[in-house]
Amino acid sequence: MKLSMMSIAVIFLFLGFSPAVEAKQYFKMQDGELQRPEGYREWIYIGTPVTPNDMNNGKAAFPEFHNVYIDPDSWKHWKKHGEFREGTILIKELVSVGSKAAVSGSGYFMGEFIGLEATIKSKTFFPDEPGNWAYFSFSAPDHGALKATATAFPTESCNACHAAAAKQDFVFTQYYPVLRSVQ
Amino acid sequence: MKLSMMSIAVIFLFLGFSPAVEAKQYFKMQDGELQRPEGYREWIYIGTPVTPNDMNNGKAAFPEFHNVYIDPDSWKHWKKHGEFREGTILIKELVSVGSKAAVSGSGYFMGEFIGLEATIKSKTFFPDEPGNWAYFSFSAPDHGALKATATAFPTESCNACHAAAAKQDFVFTQYYPVLRSVQ
Repeated sequence: MKLSMMSIAVIFLFLGFSPAVEAKQYFKMQDGELQRPEGYREWIYIGTPVTPNDMNNGKAAFPEFHNVYIDPDSWKHWKKHGEFREGTILIKELVSVGSKAAVSGSGYFMGEFIGLEATIKSKTFFPDEPGNWAYFSFSAPDHGALKATATAFPTESCNACHAAAAKQDFVFTQYYPVLRSVQ
Repeated sequence: MKLSMMSIAVIFLFLGFSPAVEAKQYFKMQDGELQRPEGYREWIYIGTPVTPNDMNNGKAAFPEFHNVYIDPDSWKHWKKHGEFREGTILIKELVSVGSKAAVSGSGYFMGEFIGLEATIKSKTFFPDEPGNWAYFSFSAPDHGALKATATAFPTESCNACHAAAAKQDFVFTQYYPVLRSVQ
């Protein structure tokens, strides 16, 4: 088959200017396991709570800074509709406290990455979870190398707190000013 | 003039696939003033120190959380070369402490946006500043509405601390694990 120049021009037109038909999914489930997400530090940052060990009897539930991100397409959806789309993934990257004093004052300053967690809203993968949210951790004991895959926590492990205290759709939006700023 | 189909195909090829010739500048100086940047919450997040008022005698120098971002093209340059390019802009968005306790533990949780600061490295605009960095604040007294423009601080206001304590090129990279992670 010989393509005419018109066909080629149409192909370039299509490649260059067609809108995406379907929103992208930023995670991969395989054999019931979530593959560790990558590239999330270039997603949209939404907020950082800090629960330092020294304010939690030496053993914080989530040590210590938690940098939270949302995937770019779910961010666009949130800005437009004020809700989390099917396929939303939120990342919680854990960072140690590296220092408690700097020239800017006393406080908490970030040290090293020590853990990685994720939550995904998917009716397809988690039809029976409340709000279709499932929760994962790639963190290793003693803050060693992250795991390559993770299985979802049992519902009761995470959902009790999220159901009771999160402001919107099981997400703690009250602590994420970037999310609140576009509502 | 009648364009041949070959010309049209070549034009589409050029539009769709040519690399950017020049890196984008993410700030605008006008009449010696920096126009308040926008869209920075979709840039690359690099870290959040928190210097709460209650750890600084009720009056922190930089209240209280400081979300720090780098513009996307300077991030690409940093990843590749490990240095801040000409035209780098870093944003420091100030956020109040909204809460000190949550179901996840005791700590500091973000409240409202209360201020905006920026620093820019530019030989063109700031040839006489150390490292060519100039510093700006759009914050208003009592955390009111942000100013639309800002003039650079006198060199001694900001640079003394940055020169003395920042780890690389007047930037406190030691507190920004996202920057350190790609070096």
